[in-house]
Amino acid sequence: MIILHHLRIGRSIFTVWLLEELGLDYELRVYLRNEMGRAQDDLKMAHPLGKSPVIEDGPIKLSESGAITAYLIETYTEPGQWAPDRADKAAWARYLQWLHYPEGSVFAPLLMTMLLKRGGEAPALLDGFAKGEVDLHLGYMAQALDRQPFILGSQISGADFGLTYVVSMANRLGLIEGYPALQAYLDRNTGRPAFRRAIDRAVE
Amino acid sequence: MIILHHLRIGRSIFTVWLLEELGLDYELRVYLRNEMGRAQDDLKMAHPLGKSPVIEDGPIKLSESGAITAYLIETYTEPGQWAPDRADKAAWARYLQWLHYPEGSVFAPLLMTMLLKRGGEAPALLDGFAKGEVDLHLGYMAQALDRQPFILGSQISGADFGLTYVVSMANRLGLIEGYPALQAYLDRNTGRPAFRRAIDRAVE
Repeated sequence: MIILHHLRIGRSIFTVWLLEELGLDYELRVYLRNEMGRAQDDLKMAHPLGKSPVIEDGPIKLSESGAITAYLIETYTEPGQWAPDRADKAAWARYLQWLHYPEGSVFAPLLMTMLLKRGGEAPALLDGFAKGEVDLHLGYMAQALDRQPFILGSQISGADFGLTYVVSMANRLGLIEGYPALQAYLDRNTGRPAFRRAIDRAVE
Repeated sequence: MIILHHLRIGRSIFTVWLLEELGLDYELRVYLRNEMGRAQDDLKMAHPLGKSPVIEDGPIKLSESGAITAYLIETYTEPGQWAPDRADKAAWARYLQWLHYPEGSVFAPLLMTMLLKRGGEAPALLDGFAKGEVDLHLGYMAQALDRQPFILGSQISGADFGLTYVVSMANRLGLIEGYPALQAYLDRNTGRPAFRRAIDRAVE
């Protein structure tokens, strides 16, 4: 059975959601943060970086949200269901792009925004960079989601999990009010039965 | 023919390197930064985010370094050559993990370090986060590369391009002196004939 190492409260809830959407059996191992909000040593037993999510699937141990999404979908679903058929090169390329985009482009400026918000005088260069990038990417995602419910079109796909994560992060930072398409996307995804089951099971 | 939109000087040199390693024909379109070090409007004609690298392959237009690497290797190489055979689940999972790791884990704290270094008083929380994460990941990469020349073993693979990028970024920030395995890895990869051809062709 798949084991998911899940650090509460954090991004791995989106991997719980994915496992629920795919209808896979899994064991959820829950870890708690210390007073500083960081993982504790117990999670380092599961993975040397002490990060979450980490999954185990038999002898395979895997970290990195995007890699876990790609792996689970490739291993446990039929082509065309959660990812385009690889034979459709253009659709496959779009899928790859959106799978890498949340971490590749959106996460860093949102993380900076979050850390700056929590305290301290913001250095102008870093602050300006973070603001500019956040605006750019929120606008880009909102435009991409303006005429379709999911990032690849009418159907949810593996590319929506990481994207929902960064949109939810932006939402927690109070940044998506001006983007109704992003708010609708977040509501649509977090309202899905599988997401509700994930929240219930992970007690978030 | 593949077109690569390349913003000088920046990360897309690693995509030029990949194209050279794969021996593919490509047209290099070079863009220059403005005085602020940012891309100019000409690159926004190629991609709405004004980012680089972007490739075009016939009707397919693709951004995100990791996605471009995955796409080019899947499209133009035989399984087992630049990526493990997908049938070997464990090897494939490791490949996916290291393909996602540079952007998913290492890039954000390095970017913060770079922006903090360029000026301004560093807010303690952000500075502490960046330092802690940078140390953690440099140590992790150094350990992974201590007994093997490339990240998946004795042979270079698609997972080495993004990793070389973040190691080179750490090097430019003066951070890898204490990690001989990372210095050796960087020297090994940037000394490859294909890397030298990339530098020559992109005039970096």
